[in-house]
Amino acid sequence: MNYIDKLKDLIGEQYVFTSEEVRNDYGSDHTEDFSFPPDVLVKPADTKEISAILKLANELKIPVTPIGALTGLSGGALSVFGGIGLSTERLNKILKIDTNNMQVTTEPAVVTQVLQEEVAKLGLYYAPDPASRGTCSIGGNLAENSGGPRAVKYGVTKDFVLNLEVVLPNGEIIWTGANTLKNSTGYNITQLLVGSEGTLGIITKAVLKLIPLPKHNLLMLVPFTSPFKACEAVASIFNAGVTPSALEFMERDAIDWTMAFVDNPPQINLKPEHKAHLLIEVDGNNLEVLYSDCEVIADVVANHEADDVLFADTEAQKEALWFLRRRVGEAVKANSVYKEEDTVVPRYELPKLLEGVKEIGKKYGFQSVCYGHAGDGNLHINIIKADMTDQAWNEELTKGIRELFELTVRLGGTISGEHGIGLVQKPYLDIAFSEVELNLMKSIKTVFDPNNILNPNKIFK
Amino acid sequence: MNYIDKLKDLIGEQYVFTSEEVRNDYGSDHTEDFSFPPDVLVKPADTKEISAILKLANELKIPVTPIGALTGLSGGALSVFGGIGLSTERLNKILKIDTNNMQVTTEPAVVTQVLQEEVAKLGLYYAPDPASRGTCSIGGNLAENSGGPRAVKYGVTKDFVLNLEVVLPNGEIIWTGANTLKNSTGYNITQLLVGSEGTLGIITKAVLKLIPLPKHNLLMLVPFTSPFKACEAVASIFNAGVTPSALEFMERDAIDWTMAFVDNPPQINLKPEHKAHLLIEVDGNNLEVLYSDCEVIADVVANHEADDVLFADTEAQKEALWFLRRRVGEAVKANSVYKEEDTVVPRYELPKLLEGVKEIGKKYGFQSVCYGHAGDGNLHINIIKADMTDQAWNEELTKGIRELFELTVRLGGTISGEHGIGLVQKPYLDIAFSEVELNLMKSIKTVFDPNNILNPNKIFK
Repeated sequence: MNYIDKLKDLIGEQYVFTSEEVRNDYGSDHTEDFSFPPDVLVKPADTKEISAILKLANELKIPVTPIGALTGLSGGALSVFGGIGLSTERLNKILKIDTNNMQVTTEPAVVTQVLQEEVAKLGLYYAPDPASRGTCSIGGNLAENSGGPRAVKYGVTKDFVLNLEVVLPNGEIIWTGANTLKNSTGYNITQLLVGSEGTLGIITKAVLKLIPLPKHNLLMLVPFTSPFKACEAVASIFNAGVTPSALEFMERDAIDWTMAFVDNPPQINLKPEHKAHLLIEVDGNNLEVLYSDCEVIADVVANHEADDVLFADTEAQKEALWFLRRRVGEAVKANSVYKEEDTVVPRYELPKLLEGVKEIGKKYGFQSVCYGHAGDGNLHINIIKADMTDQAWNEELTKGIRELFELTVRLGGTISGEHGIGLVQKPYLDIAFSEVELNLMKSIKTVFDPNNILNPNKIFK
Repeated sequence: MNYIDKLKDLIGEQYVFTSEEVRNDYGSDHTEDFSFPPDVLVKPADTKEISAILKLANELKIPVTPIGALTGLSGGALSVFGGIGLSTERLNKILKIDTNNMQVTTEPAVVTQVLQEEVAKLGLYYAPDPASRGTCSIGGNLAENSGGPRAVKYGVTKDFVLNLEVVLPNGEIIWTGANTLKNSTGYNITQLLVGSEGTLGIITKAVLKLIPLPKHNLLMLVPFTSPFKACEAVASIFNAGVTPSALEFMERDAIDWTMAFVDNPPQINLKPEHKAHLLIEVDGNNLEVLYSDCEVIADVVANHEADDVLFADTEAQKEALWFLRRRVGEAVKANSVYKEEDTVVPRYELPKLLEGVKEIGKKYGFQSVCYGHAGDGNLHINIIKADMTDQAWNEELTKGIRELFELTVRLGGTISGEHGIGLVQKPYLDIAFSEVELNLMKSIKTVFDPNNILNPNKIFK
């Protein structure tokens, strides 16, 4: 019996797919234009079936690629060696919302926004909110340690994880920790799994921390005549004692392209001299405090050559601005062939990073559009192919990206803030880590996955 | 040349100690009455010297025990196999306070309170504050993932760590991450090191996150006629939408013994019917909001049969109450031979845990005094020898503690919230983890320390 028949035995014929159409559907995520279909796509029902599949694959040494909602931006879910594509999509239930302990136990395929909305009905808040929150799922967020706009105040995915059920590559099932806010019991396997991009185990349940849902928020869009001035304002806002619940940066091109890309773009008074914007949100339970925070912010940005602040005071206006911000990624990507870098630096170093991006762009002849979560120093740099030759794009550019990442690391930063290394950033990992550090990580991979069957060829060469 | 002479060559004769007096001084921490002196105590000057010592020890396979401020409560710094005791005490400088990025880079032997006070001068806050913060040091806090009263709002040590310089057991020096708030670059080695109790590497520098120092705080002491009612009130406070900056629980004995133990105890109207207290702090930048939080809390506790709230409205009164709380551990321990358990559960389960403690105590004939960080479900259970026979204390009690931990785990909790496993909780680790999980951890230990020279016989059997 070949392994595909064995898979059918394990989880039922109707959940094992070998048609080209299905395999292609599960062969691409949101990373550039890659296509790496698995040889067979399986949709197991639960932890037990995932365990059985991994046990089989481990025995036969067949690669297994865990597949979530396929919204990843580093190629982590691509079946680069074919083999088994394991979609967790049937593990899509919120298992328990525990209001007494402010925790939710969920399966991985629950869409992030769905989870947020379900707990919000009970006055609770799950803060991590990647731009793709309407389509991405918790499992992928855990695998990549996703962030999003609210990370600046509330932290990234890792900061909301208490405990994980994980199927190891040999099929064994473990819980990584306990359902507690504190834990000094053994090594932190929970945090080792978060952000491990599906290379150490498949997460089948997660116990996540919730917090009280803030009652109010206020949003402002601030135009600047210089993108560098906008970046400078970022650290100044924090140093004035305000911690915004979101602090997003967008270069002018990002806004223009998105305004052209979406239906019903919001009303914004865009003047030719506006070169960049900050979108700034504050939230909390006391509106007066929030208005006073906004005043502080308005004073700070005025000192950084901001033009008139657009203050969103209706829910509709707020939604329109957030809609714009959340579509930037798609809009930029629809505009041209692109590569997206996910640099992150300590926030005060942002202007230096942005200057470096533009200088390196000049040197290597590429255009870039930058936007991102400026509040935590996370700048998404979209490198646009435009009229670059294929040769420049495919060969020269690698050197430019390398320079960019070297600058990032010199500024105290690193090469991925929230997208992960996956397939596309692998060639640059030596910029972030020494050989000793990389060998430690590879050895940990070997502890979990001695046969290297689980999501092979990701993160490490 | 024997290894002690080699050590003298490496770091200078005056920093290598073999006298019984010094060895004994470094052979005890705050865990029960243990004494495990090293064969030789060394005080290296810097990362480079620590690297040289570990390289030597690794070649000769001599055990090395990292020693911080010796305030640990699980025996993590005890030189159980003799060998080299490596005190980090000369690495005691705050290297850089970066106000622009709200970060501090520090050496490990800086006393926690000293670090807090230095950054506070610049309007910044390092929140983790173990009861021993006046004597414990950052290195130990990192090793044990320490918490303290403010963890309930701000998180534990792990939540403030951005990047670590670590000397590996073979002498190699690494940085674990980047100085950024977000990081999805490779495995989270930073979080693997935090709480690893000096078994994976010696932390020689830490980059810690800082936050704006809250401008105001208010403190209230609330007496309850039942300790179970006090515990019940804890989750209710959060569910009313308030997140206190501290929420501490103390049984009556803990208060009585501490009042008798300290000079100048605070003025508290203790009535015979007061069986337990909650000490509740709120903090923030807006006093009005804090007063309104206190009103909400007062309503909640009234619903849980609280007696009159003592509201501390002067700095002196606040300090007196905190002084009392911070001395409870010492006072209880001065009262009798004891064993301290550091259980943690989801906070709503606290009353069930406390009931279980008392029932198990009855069954095994032990008295207990409980106190701790109720806001995050962390209950310190001090088991008092009193008039138990030595046989009951040394043999029967182990079964009682086992029952206690089994209950804790059944409630979704675990066996250490902030003290670590170290030497004393090792026999119980199988209650928290399956064999598969323990083997994963042991294999990770082997990746870092194939010769098992660094803090051997800690965490795992």
